[in-house]
Amino acid sequence: MNKFGKRFCFSTFGESHGKAIGCLVDGVPAGIKIDLDFIQGELDKRKPGLNKFATSRKESDTVQILSGVFEGYSTGTPIELIIYNEDQKSKDYENIKEIFRPGHADFTYYKKYDIRDYRGGGRSSARETASRVAAGAIAKLFLKELNIKVLSGVCEIGGIKSTKCNFNFVQKSEIYSVDKNMDKTWQKLIMEAKKSHDSIGGVAIIKVKNAPAGLGEPIYYKLDAILANAMMSINGVKAIEIGEGILASSLKGSQNNDQLSTKGFLSNKSGGILGGISNAEDIDLKVYFKPTPSIFIEQQTIDKDGNELKYSLSGRHDPCIAVRGSVVAEAMAALVIADMLLLNLSSKIGTIKKAYVK
Amino acid sequence: MNKFGKRFCFSTFGESHGKAIGCLVDGVPAGIKIDLDFIQGELDKRKPGLNKFATSRKESDTVQILSGVFEGYSTGTPIELIIYNEDQKSKDYENIKEIFRPGHADFTYYKKYDIRDYRGGGRSSARETASRVAAGAIAKLFLKELNIKVLSGVCEIGGIKSTKCNFNFVQKSEIYSVDKNMDKTWQKLIMEAKKSHDSIGGVAIIKVKNAPAGLGEPIYYKLDAILANAMMSINGVKAIEIGEGILASSLKGSQNNDQLSTKGFLSNKSGGILGGISNAEDIDLKVYFKPTPSIFIEQQTIDKDGNELKYSLSGRHDPCIAVRGSVVAEAMAALVIADMLLLNLSSKIGTIKKAYVK
Amino acid sequence: MNKFGKRFCFSTFGESHGKAIGCLVDGVPAGIKIDLDFIQGELDKRKPGLNKFATSRKESDTVQILSGVFEGYSTGTPIELIIYNEDQKSKDYENIKEIFRPGHADFTYYKKYDIRDYRGGGRSSARETASRVAAGAIAKLFLKELNIKVLSGVCEIGGIKSTKCNFNFVQKSEIYSVDKNMDKTWQKLIMEAKKSHDSIGGVAIIKVKNAPAGLGEPIYYKLDAILANAMMSINGVKAIEIGEGILASSLKGSQNNDQLSTKGFLSNKSGGILGGISNAEDIDLKVYFKPTPSIFIEQQTIDKDGNELKYSLSGRHDPCIAVRGSVVAEAMAALVIADMLLLNLSSKIGTIKKAYVK
Amino acid sequence: MNKFGKRFCFSTFGESHGKAIGCLVDGVPAGIKIDLDFIQGELDKRKPGLNKFATSRKESDTVQILSGVFEGYSTGTPIELIIYNEDQKSKDYENIKEIFRPGHADFTYYKKYDIRDYRGGGRSSARETASRVAAGAIAKLFLKELNIKVLSGVCEIGGIKSTKCNFNFVQKSEIYSVDKNMDKTWQKLIMEAKKSHDSIGGVAIIKVKNAPAGLGEPIYYKLDAILANAMMSINGVKAIEIGEGILASSLKGSQNNDQLSTKGFLSNKSGGILGGISNAEDIDLKVYFKPTPSIFIEQQTIDKDGNELKYSLSGRHDPCIAVRGSVVAEAMAALVIADMLLLNLSSKIGTIKKAYVK
Repeated sequence: MNKFGKRFCFSTFGESHGKAIGCLVDGVPAGIKIDLDFIQGELDKRKPGLNKFATSRKESDTVQILSGVFEGYSTGTPIELIIYNEDQKSKDYENIKEIFRPGHADFTYYKKYDIRDYRGGGRSSARETASRVAAGAIAKLFLKELNIKVLSGVCEIGGIKSTKCNFNFVQKSEIYSVDKNMDKTWQKLIMEAKKSHDSIGGVAIIKVKNAPAGLGEPIYYKLDAILANAMMSINGVKAIEIGEGILASSLKGSQNNDQLSTKGFLSNKSGGILGGISNAEDIDLKVYFKPTPSIFIEQQTIDKDGNELKYSLSGRHDPCIAVRGSVVAEAMAALVIADMLLLNLSSKIGTIKKAYVK
Repeated sequence: MNKFGKRFCFSTFGESHGKAIGCLVDGVPAGIKIDLDFIQGELDKRKPGLNKFATSRKESDTVQILSGVFEGYSTGTPIELIIYNEDQKSKDYENIKEIFRPGHADFTYYKKYDIRDYRGGGRSSARETASRVAAGAIAKLFLKELNIKVLSGVCEIGGIKSTKCNFNFVQKSEIYSVDKNMDKTWQKLIMEAKKSHDSIGGVAIIKVKNAPAGLGEPIYYKLDAILANAMMSINGVKAIEIGEGILASSLKGSQNNDQLSTKGFLSNKSGGILGGISNAEDIDLKVYFKPTPSIFIEQQTIDKDGNELKYSLSGRHDPCIAVRGSVVAEAMAALVIADMLLLNLSSKIGTIKKAYVK
Repeated sequence: MNKFGKRFCFSTFGESHGKAIGCLVDGVPAGIKIDLDFIQGELDKRKPGLNKFATSRKESDTVQILSGVFEGYSTGTPIELIIYNEDQKSKDYENIKEIFRPGHADFTYYKKYDIRDYRGGGRSSARETASRVAAGAIAKLFLKELNIKVLSGVCEIGGIKSTKCNFNFVQKSEIYSVDKNMDKTWQKLIMEAKKSHDSIGGVAIIKVKNAPAGLGEPIYYKLDAILANAMMSINGVKAIEIGEGILASSLKGSQNNDQLSTKGFLSNKSGGILGGISNAEDIDLKVYFKPTPSIFIEQQTIDKDGNELKYSLSGRHDPCIAVRGSVVAEAMAALVIADMLLLNLSSKIGTIKKAYVK
Repeated sequence: MNKFGKRFCFSTFGESHGKAIGCLVDGVPAGIKIDLDFIQGELDKRKPGLNKFATSRKESDTVQILSGVFEGYSTGTPIELIIYNEDQKSKDYENIKEIFRPGHADFTYYKKYDIRDYRGGGRSSARETASRVAAGAIAKLFLKELNIKVLSGVCEIGGIKSTKCNFNFVQKSEIYSVDKNMDKTWQKLIMEAKKSHDSIGGVAIIKVKNAPAGLGEPIYYKLDAILANAMMSINGVKAIEIGEGILASSLKGSQNNDQLSTKGFLSNKSGGILGGISNAEDIDLKVYFKPTPSIFIEQQTIDKDGNELKYSLSGRHDPCIAVRGSVVAEAMAALVIADMLLLNLSSKIGTIKKAYVK
């Protein structure tokens, strides 16, 4: 259950304060140029310690490829990516060894397994998402061969929505903002939360460009359903919408239907997906992140033995997980699209004959 | 890809205007009393033609069990459920044979497969969801053995939200409303949409009661992620949220964290799921349905050959799919919980020893 | 766990004395001509009551298609095939209700599930294999598009091996013999076993012709491993070998290696598979069937309460399951090859670009 | 497709001459004592360079645990095991860079992927099986908790069969022989093959003791079918039999049926499996290995461009892969049983209630 995807798929391992984290990417088609610098660049976008908006934990997140690549190209065999942990301060967690931090998975892991690695949240730490970004980078190298792009950014913080969406601005913003006008406002909101020992929620927006029509395997591996699955598996995500999404539920059919002309769809309220299958328009989705549960304000909780107590968390944490979370959401979207591209190869006899009949 | 679930799982088949629809429910533990009347009762809640808020297509949706049950009990072998179609008016669809209805899957199925059964939407018809309700009824019979309940209802229509949530009222309402005070208002909104040849969106709410802590298999089969997957696979669903969900993205950590006392959690903003694992609180989610794409107002579209044209749909359709959709969402939630209960059996050595060591 | 295959896959349902048996074939590429007469013809080869070498149970095994086919072609949606049971003599089984027949699954199903449908073996009956033959016929219609053929026949009975292998003779033989010279000898062995109220074992041989190189997904979905899985899942199969198989274990490397020339491999001891991947030679395998466990000679056994007793079986049974078993093995081979063809579509970037880049 | 198993499952990565090989073991129940020395001990049985009967490549096969274990116990999260490669002589393979070695996967990997890591066979090397032994050791630590044992040994070399089967002798024999009387004969056969620059085939025998009744998930995840799958996935395996297996195909039903008494089965010709489910007797199987394809005698082959040529292999190779192969087969059997134990937990409502109802 630590595996995602059917054909282009990956499995991850590793805990926040273990020796290493990593992933095995399986089903990568042979013959793709594997650019290690690109993979590292993707990881650098997510790595901790980048600026004041991220946790101060210092991890270079240096990734190594252990298998599956030969003379620079994928060989069709599993690609193992590994990142050794460097800056674990496990002692920071000694004081939470016996207690369940509110908003965290401490309670549920303990109930499920009767044992848990409490150091930094163990397996439930968002540190696991570095593996996703590494796997996502491989997916992107594949998508590049087909000219498909995946973009992401932050489009809302603390309930304040963007008014524009400019993906070109994202890499210029310290908080991956899609809206230059909102950048300072949002930064201020995050810093205020941080200064008051609190945290704040936010929303990421994802767009896939140039995906062909036909992606998605109905009825139970629909493109939107698997995107929802992928996004909701990211730490702190509590809602997901496709296209108009939430707003669609308050509209009339005549307002929400995307009509068609000879030039294509006249609008894209569907977010590029109809009946669980892509329609060649942009695939649009939004991902809602809760505020970081790690806050330094005193909270009430219980320990393993059921004793009530008050405690204040110490440690190093992101004040707003939506920021680095947007990078993870982008990676997950790339991984879903890569998988769907492979699955769709068998949809019709024409494509199959083209592959086999000389 | 027409299968859902890992251990308690089901596959469906059938088109809107084919001979029959049905499902194969696999992994049902042996020894569960299979009550056919109960299954039929569940189907009756979803069946078409019930009242003016549903399509006027008349289907008794009479379900038969073909296998897997012996002397009234499940035997551990696959349970095949079949529903023969009765009231197909395939001629209604002759005029849309060559065209792509806006908001429907006509375009995408054609692009994916180069062939489509245009009659009533074929496989992409919401008629397929009857199979889910039948499978969900089997799941509920299993959940009953463990005293777990799944509830659903409509909590918003056309952007007008409920102020209360009373699941006891649902079966008294013609539109499965959870709010007696809103019932007439919502009915009026739906009828207005219908009368103006239009349709309207809405939201369903789902609650699971008495689920034990420990359900959900991190990192890539988390309870919330699979619920999102399940819900988003339902026709017309465009967004999904768990617990506070969307609202959580605008909150501070101190507002959103559920603190703990000796009596349990002091609030349930998480919707009963932390780190993808249930915490024994109620599991709460909302599912956002777009308005029915089938409207009778004239729309612009193209045909298979790319010619632009205007057309007005005829046929029989629900003015608001959220109503009957809530029943489907409930069934899908039951199926997810059933699967998670089986998966969780292997989480720790203690449980396993209890099963094998005498 | 009643599903086989990854992309071209099928699930079966049904018990020997239930209402119906059938299968859901999923992942069939769209655009394949679905010839119902051909499917029925395949089933007729396996159907009971054909001659004195098969059980005298009379089943027409008339198959119906309930979904997934539109105007004669597959649509990419699941194809449901159903066969209603006609000639159940459930009363024949009243006397074995409480006892475990030696060599049968009665004991193990009861231990696993605490309940069992004892009528005709219930789910563990070889009647289930009719569903496989139906699904296999769909696979063959797909293979036909790529000019791939799957052949089978009986090559050994009661330890007497064939000296020739002529697949053209198979349909002329009442016992699907590949060796005209052995046909009478083998028939005699079977009839002698039958007359002495006993049964006899045998071996089936399978050959796949024209399969392209590249089929099989190493390391854990190798072509030979999945063929072994498929064959061993057939009732009564106790051994399987690929190519030289058993004999290879007594050879030297210099005897067993297939050397290569510009015209291809100089021998085919590997059975067409190297490293789990097809090499474009014939794929050759043998499947070893035990004697039918249903014999009429008195045997010792126990009942549910652990009491020892002696009993003589009544009922209608095949004296040699290898005969009709060969048809099932052929169907399973076709299903494995179909699946592998689809899986292999994503092996290299070149094929993928051909499918997506215009 | 580099993953094996459903619940207790593992994925492997790595090439013969890459940086490292390893595996991710997923679904390990929490609370199992993970003894690293035991895992290393298992690997030591398979490691190269042990004696003259194995390849002279020197690998310490030192295994490290990177995740999933906390304070000595499994936590329910994935256990990553890694083995760095030490003694690669990649230059040995320069001369086979462009040619396809007979009996190897060179040809098929190239046909499938258009690229291959030729160094030591790359991914298709038996070096991959070290990962299986490591994963198998984890499985054994789990089986130990339930007192289940898996044994293996060599029972035939070059067509000379054992007359006795004594698993206690195996660790005393340099070639893991189960028959003290045959040990010298077999050693001689192997050394003769080696001296004549050739190799020789052999057979391994596997026994599982104390497995409970009820393991195996019919119809398409039967215990015997999955064992066959597991064994056939091992490099060089060409046949597999369960219990009497091959011999059964020449017997009468009256000879082959295992009758029952109050004390259990009176014989075990079925090999402990009926209808794909374990019956609590010993599970017995045999695995047939072809001779090592790597021989030093001159052979004819072709290169990538289709040119015919003669060549003589150099390098370091096992003269008989059945010897170290038996250790791998034992590991795979342990992994299958572990998976089946977890899967069987959901077979009946009684077991499930015991787990959830307090």
